[in-house]
Amino acid sequence: MNLLLLDDDDFVADGRAILRDRRLKHVREIHRAAVGETLRVGRIGGCVGAGRILRLDEGALELEVECADPPPPPLPVTLVFALPRPPTLRKVLEQGTAMGVKRFIAIGAKRVERSYWTSKSLRPEALRESFMLGLEQGKDTVMPSLERCPRFAAFHRERWPELRAAGRPLLADAGPAVIWPSKGAPSGHAGTILVVGPEGGFIEPEVATWRDGGCEVVSLGPRTLRVETAVVALLGRMIGPGALAEAATVHPL
Amino acid sequence: MNLLLLDDDDFVADGRAILRDRRLKHVREIHRAAVGETLRVGRIGGCVGAGRILRLDEGALELEVECADPPPPPLPVTLVFALPRPPTLRKVLEQGTAMGVKRFIAIGAKRVERSYWTSKSLRPEALRESFMLGLEQGKDTVMPSLERCPRFAAFHRERWPELRAAGRPLLADAGPAVIWPSKGAPSGHAGTILVVGPEGGFIEPEVATWRDGGCEVVSLGPRTLRVETAVVALLGRMIGPGALAEAATVHPL
Repeated sequence: MNLLLLDDDDFVADGRAILRDRRLKHVREIHRAAVGETLRVGRIGGCVGAGRILRLDEGALELEVECADPPPPPLPVTLVFALPRPPTLRKVLEQGTAMGVKRFIAIGAKRVERSYWTSKSLRPEALRESFMLGLEQGKDTVMPSLERCPRFAAFHRERWPELRAAGRPLLADAGPAVIWPSKGAPSGHAGTILVVGPEGGFIEPEVATWRDGGCEVVSLGPRTLRVETAVVALLGRMIGPGALAEAATVHPL
Repeated sequence: MNLLLLDDDDFVADGRAILRDRRLKHVREIHRAAVGETLRVGRIGGCVGAGRILRLDEGALELEVECADPPPPPLPVTLVFALPRPPTLRKVLEQGTAMGVKRFIAIGAKRVERSYWTSKSLRPEALRESFMLGLEQGKDTVMPSLERCPRFAAFHRERWPELRAAGRPLLADAGPAVIWPSKGAPSGHAGTILVVGPEGGFIEPEVATWRDGGCEVVSLGPRTLRVETAVVALLGRMIGPGALAEAATVHPL
């Protein structure tokens, strides 16, 4: 946990928060912090700053909170991905969130098993946990969202036209692989719609639908990567000057 | 498993292999293949090709093997990384191998716990398993290697001069963060020495040693990423035309 996330409910007064849940446990057992020390904190949806420990015992962690710095800028990428099996979903959401993705759209496809849509990992509390872990890792406060579109055809008919109009659509899935970047790197481009397929890839008619929908097909080469690895590698390529402008001061990677 | 890896010991005659271990189990239970079907196979250290199933039952998988295609080109990156805790090590080795890294060098640092050096994950059979999983994922046959240098100072004195002379050294760890790419992307550069620090980063004197050793300090922005996420994101940025030249034919991502 690189950032202690605080909700409005945690505040008992202006600039004064009291925690009693897993965060108390974490600060006591993992951080092993002590009264008087300062923790990096953030208000969900708000600023980041410092929390000075006023009290820390079995019963509560009390903090004097001052948050004035903006969270890191989001990664300007909308991630549209074929719903993977639950453990992979959690990795994609957590790592994507840590890297700054704010909008995830899980879609159906021929190679997406229907049972995945009833997974516990898609329940609100499970999603919130994946997002919180990612935000805590990335020192961010802005909660992402996940939209669900189990029907491939309906997604393309009803949702895609608006989405593609908002950015540059890239399909990172099947071939014939176009060398990427084909012209200029998408890095720093304001608004990429990155589409990632299921294990085994989209089937041919699906790829044709993406192409007809205006997607440029990109590739990371001849190696087949796991979905979670491919997503992180692709997002890594999309970190641009926007994200880095904030990095002029010192931050560990 | 995207590729069934075969060792010399598996061959009972020229172009004829018999398997009885976990690969038999995998092909029966996961692939659910049948006699007459063809599997993608590769010879460790050699070519990739096809294996036609001649026999498949509880006792053995017998294949008629023809391998004539080269494995995918390696990623021209030497990964020098502070030894992480064992689960992270396994992820770094497996994902790095899938992405084409052939040389890993684990080093000590102030924030590397000494107990990590005695971890089971560093035993030869555990390393081989991590590498095999990565090769099977990336459809590669060329086994990587891991070198160990527990002493930071000794590494810099005895090993670094030769290493840095062989490529472009980049330190992806602490700041002051230089915007990356500072001049041109390292993508496609023949021989990058990528140095990745421990959770929490290298301490200041260590960063100074890397700088004095000629490293350019690069950053992925203000977000703190887990070691395994940072490694994949960084490697993703280094996939260049060399890796992609082979991708002119169709391959799923």
